[in-house]
Amino acid sequence: MFTTSTYQNRRQALQNKISGGILLFLGNIENPINFEHNTYPFRQDSTFLYYFGLAVPALVGLIDLDENKEIIFGREATIDDLVWTGPQESLSDRAARVGVTETAPISSLAEYIGRAIAQNRTIHFLPPYQSANKLLLSELLNQTPSQLQPSVSLIRAVAQQRSIKEAQEVAEIERAVAVSTKMHLLTMQLAKAGMKESELVNAVQAFAGNQDCALAYPPIITVHGQILHNQVRSNILKNGDMVLVDAGAETAIGYAGDLTRTFPVAAAFDSRQRDLYQIVLDALEGARAQLRPGVSFKSVHLHAAKILVEGLKAVGLMKSDPEEAVQNHAHTMFFQCGLGHLMGLDVHDMEDLGEQYVGYTEDNPKDTQTFGLKSLRLGKPLEAGFVLTVEPGIYIIPELIDHWKATNKYSDFVNYAELEKFRDFGGIRLEDNFLITPEGHQLLGPDLIKTIDDVESYRARYV
Amino acid sequence: MFTTSTYQNRRQALQNKISGGILLFLGNIENPINFEHNTYPFRQDSTFLYYFGLAVPALVGLIDLDENKEIIFGREATIDDLVWTGPQESLSDRAARVGVTETAPISSLAEYIGRAIAQNRTIHFLPPYQSANKLLLSELLNQTPSQLQPSVSLIRAVAQQRSIKEAQEVAEIERAVAVSTKMHLLTMQLAKAGMKESELVNAVQAFAGNQDCALAYPPIITVHGQILHNQVRSNILKNGDMVLVDAGAETAIGYAGDLTRTFPVAAAFDSRQRDLYQIVLDALEGARAQLRPGVSFKSVHLHAAKILVEGLKAVGLMKSDPEEAVQNHAHTMFFQCGLGHLMGLDVHDMEDLGEQYVGYTEDNPKDTQTFGLKSLRLGKPLEAGFVLTVEPGIYIIPELIDHWKATNKYSDFVNYAELEKFRDFGGIRLEDNFLITPEGHQLLGPDLIKTIDDVESYRARYV
Repeated sequence: MFTTSTYQNRRQALQNKISGGILLFLGNIENPINFEHNTYPFRQDSTFLYYFGLAVPALVGLIDLDENKEIIFGREATIDDLVWTGPQESLSDRAARVGVTETAPISSLAEYIGRAIAQNRTIHFLPPYQSANKLLLSELLNQTPSQLQPSVSLIRAVAQQRSIKEAQEVAEIERAVAVSTKMHLLTMQLAKAGMKESELVNAVQAFAGNQDCALAYPPIITVHGQILHNQVRSNILKNGDMVLVDAGAETAIGYAGDLTRTFPVAAAFDSRQRDLYQIVLDALEGARAQLRPGVSFKSVHLHAAKILVEGLKAVGLMKSDPEEAVQNHAHTMFFQCGLGHLMGLDVHDMEDLGEQYVGYTEDNPKDTQTFGLKSLRLGKPLEAGFVLTVEPGIYIIPELIDHWKATNKYSDFVNYAELEKFRDFGGIRLEDNFLITPEGHQLLGPDLIKTIDDVESYRARYV
Repeated sequence: MFTTSTYQNRRQALQNKISGGILLFLGNIENPINFEHNTYPFRQDSTFLYYFGLAVPALVGLIDLDENKEIIFGREATIDDLVWTGPQESLSDRAARVGVTETAPISSLAEYIGRAIAQNRTIHFLPPYQSANKLLLSELLNQTPSQLQPSVSLIRAVAQQRSIKEAQEVAEIERAVAVSTKMHLLTMQLAKAGMKESELVNAVQAFAGNQDCALAYPPIITVHGQILHNQVRSNILKNGDMVLVDAGAETAIGYAGDLTRTFPVAAAFDSRQRDLYQIVLDALEGARAQLRPGVSFKSVHLHAAKILVEGLKAVGLMKSDPEEAVQNHAHTMFFQCGLGHLMGLDVHDMEDLGEQYVGYTEDNPKDTQTFGLKSLRLGKPLEAGFVLTVEPGIYIIPELIDHWKATNKYSDFVNYAELEKFRDFGGIRLEDNFLITPEGHQLLGPDLIKTIDDVESYRARYV
């Protein structure tokens, strides 16, 4: 947890941006797995963490702008809680740690909100993503879940504030990235032919846990890297495969790292793997070089796509003019997703607030239709203080080839005859995390090995 | 997954018990952690698994008794899903594996239910525990979540059927218990002074994962065993402490094991630990000896409580007549919870259906007021085919001592002067899993070491 004044200052800065009404921040609950009291590991809502810092289930933070009050609503422990979960800090002691002097029983929240509604005051809230909070808002506001209207002014104010990371946040993200790099080195040490993908997942999870970290998201550790969010982990590694590892740690106070590496199960890449790996690496370095305030991330994305096309043309998988190929979205045969996203308290930072507010601007709205661009989470001009990922890749998806080839889609740009020879190639992604600085950018965390030579010589020590 | 006919037979048996209407079984969704697409590991609802077997998110199983139809509602994969999550089996192929021939898009469910409501037909459903399913039912039935009335006839029929385990279920539970015993042996191998509790949790989790199992519940691994559901894992083990490990595996198709052992961090128990450990072991063995069809588990609970009191009297912590002490609930100074619970697809089997239906009968309802008995999840007469845990313990809770001593509560039975000397003792629990057989009972899984001599000689090999 940061200092008390951190949270006070953040709330003060927010209050200065909203003219009136009540700001309602719903904390998360402990979510049931298969019955109410068998629950998933608790994770506090990130915006609640940002303004109220307490990783305690079932709290609600309220800022009453009209009456100049801050209140944390919650539940005091009973004697039964003592028996089942041990002595608990009181709600008021907890609140004091984040500079909130007023607390109230959660059971009195409905009355508080009801009174404000009766006074025709605005209740600002953020888009709920957990069903429990949809239900709670629905009850508090006496609306059906589909009627709930999150506050766009609150969303914009929160997104703007959380987008610019404080120095202490950057330091915490660097800690998350540092643990993440060690998780990746561990996979490069352990992976060997005959091993199951899940063994690497389990090792990474235990390692993160032993560093007092959680996993920021379900790791993707797969020999089928062409499946972007592959959660199948039952394949057996064999020589000739590459392992794509997309894994990041989350620190105890909730900040994420998000790194991807792709390495051969054998001691060395084969020549095709080497060729395509180098293209992805070139795209990463080329994109990185463009990172600086004022540059739109959409242009960085398209620049990376062009580098990918140039490389793919050089190896005969694409043809024609690279610029034109990218303008026609033909690179999405190989690169179907976005180049990166903001990162912070969430691995996709503030994705719950809506990408149109977080990653785009009113003047440059998100393209929600075009295959490829509709998956680009960040498109707006970069600002100093942004933390983001850059993650180009080449993904050869047999079903997508069949689907598009059947209609000659992109046949001016894609060399289908050559591509057929690669249909079982798999996928490669490389991902690093950066801070945008006034001068340009800074790599976050230690520099995790990524050149072909470095990866091969590291692997050679363990294979 | 079991054979197709398993699921067909289970559904047929259920249909024979309900006279008419529609039976609605809501599968679970992937629950968001901190935004919609960052989700916890998927766990299917247990009743859905029991009747429809498919561990796939966002399915609904429907049995229309009036029209003699079985339908699985779900969503077919799109080309986008292919890119993000790889090729998926079709809904109809999935349904065929559990003997259901009709499938429909989830978007058509509301219409189906709406038509049935218009026909004044009964929609039977079970109590929803995940908020997403409360919302879904609320929408389907056009009722507020608090208006929803689960079907008592369906609850009773499901509880009766799921309570009596099939041979193949018992075999699967034995597999879960077998992995659980290995998890426990691992903790006894690894634990040493200076280690953090969480390191044992992480090791156990990775081990279970490498056996293709999940954890059936968040493990309790603590030097403060007196806190019944302790989830703090930041303490450092030191000589003189005992480690209480309550951990169980869940097999790939969802069956749980649930074992507890308590062992010394040093190579041997000290004399007080030894004394109280033996009392708990005596209670476990005494309770076990009573397990047979027709015996109420409440009487087994009270019998175990009496053995605990006898032992505590022998060491000077209690006084007066043990029988009378138990009748007055004075044992709850040391044993605040219930002796055990049913186990199966849930570690607390069918807890979501309601303990009054699952663990009790209409004639012998649950005591929901009395401290101690209100935490006894199973009270009804045992039947052959039940699988359950037996888990006596002694928990010395300083705050509870202070609370009760202040009002002289149980001062006829509790020797507070002596108890004060034990206030930092901690807690001991021992837990095994049993099948009720026509003749009596059978221990499930391998016999995990539990005598003082066996535990000490095992620990001596690793300390």
